[in-house]
Amino acid sequence: MRVSDLSRSSGVPVATIKYYLREGLLPRGETTSPNQARYDDAHIRRLRLIRALVEVGGLPIATVREVLSAVDDPAVGLHDMLGRTVYAITGDVGASGSLDEAEADLAGAMVHLGWQVEKDAPALAGARSVLARMHELGWGPGEETLRAWAEAADRAAEGDLAAIGRTTDREEAAETALVGTVLGDALLAALRRIAQESRSAQRYRAES
Amino acid sequence: MRVSDLSRSSGVPVATIKYYLREGLLPRGETTSPNQARYDDAHIRRLRLIRALVEVGGLPIATVREVLSAVDDPAVGLHDMLGRTVYAITGDVGASGSLDEAEADLAGAMVHLGWQVEKDAPALAGARSVLARMHELGWGPGEETLRAWAEAADRAAEGDLAAIGRTTDREEAAETALVGTVLGDALLAALRRIAQESRSAQRYRAES
Repeated sequence: MRVSDLSRSSGVPVATIKYYLREGLLPRGETTSPNQARYDDAHIRRLRLIRALVEVGGLPIATVREVLSAVDDPAVGLHDMLGRTVYAITGDVGASGSLDEAEADLAGAMVHLGWQVEKDAPALAGARSVLARMHELGWGPGEETLRAWAEAADRAAEGDLAAIGRTTDREEAAETALVGTVLGDALLAALRRIAQESRSAQRYRAES
Repeated sequence: MRVSDLSRSSGVPVATIKYYLREGLLPRGETTSPNQARYDDAHIRRLRLIRALVEVGGLPIATVREVLSAVDDPAVGLHDMLGRTVYAITGDVGASGSLDEAEADLAGAMVHLGWQVEKDAPALAGARSVLARMHELGWGPGEETLRAWAEAADRAAEGDLAAIGRTTDREEAAETALVGTVLGDALLAALRRIAQESRSAQRYRAES
């Protein structure tokens, strides 16, 4: 198909497609004449992934290029490819105050669930910072609550892996990890509020 | 204690305390002379709650006043007070595209967990919007993943209620609901990435 058809099929404007081609995010199509190139379904899939990275993940173009190079490198195993994709969208809120209690909280949760990750995983620093901020506010979660949250995170990740397991290629797996992680955070937050309200009604309405 | 001691104990600057007094968020202290008032522990607790609402929840002053009026009104039951607090921090990302599939997904999750909430709960609209956006991207979560996420949210909410159950007064309960919900979202997101990495390593490293 021509670039105009690619735009129609993907919903991405022609000018944006040309920008992605110039930046090397989207591979060039097969040249059919000096002014024309032919694109195929692989280009549509790649455009979907770029949109997910840029629009949903909010990544800068340079980071998108980096993630795509891991997707395209068959020497990078699926686990590492997914890792690079998710690492790219994981920011650190920045630690403040003492990290000792936060460190102990996090270590407890890791042991409870048997989690093992790379020492430089950005999510470790992220979790530590949030816990430190909670303690700074005089509001440590306490063991029972922290365990419940860790188990919740583990169950959510089980769902994430189930979704990735249904995909058939690397591009789709990366897209699923990305959309599922970013939009999944927002969905989990909303579902948690629904569950809070339902459980609170059961517990406190009966008492009043 | 004097306003200067209240500032030291709470970590809130004197100018900010005076602003909260003028805006009616913080009750006036007991007048001890024409230019002085005496404050007590109740003022420290109230300042902690205001900080949580403003700094952690990101709420505008008018909304803080509204939440505090529910906290202060003994006629408002604990469930409704917590509800108003959490409703105030729950935004809607705005629906886009068709809501039919999203509606069916959400209904399925509600039935699966037996959740019952008010029809106008902001989190319902929030969950629906995120699901609609997922479907728009051609990425519906699928039943297995959605169930896992709903169960994760339910387990997280169980932890939330456990934390609230440990509190001894309304002010503390509201603060716990608020800090636990807002910072808890960030913590759950980080823990989920840790769990993803750990589970992905188990699953895909063995295969490669």
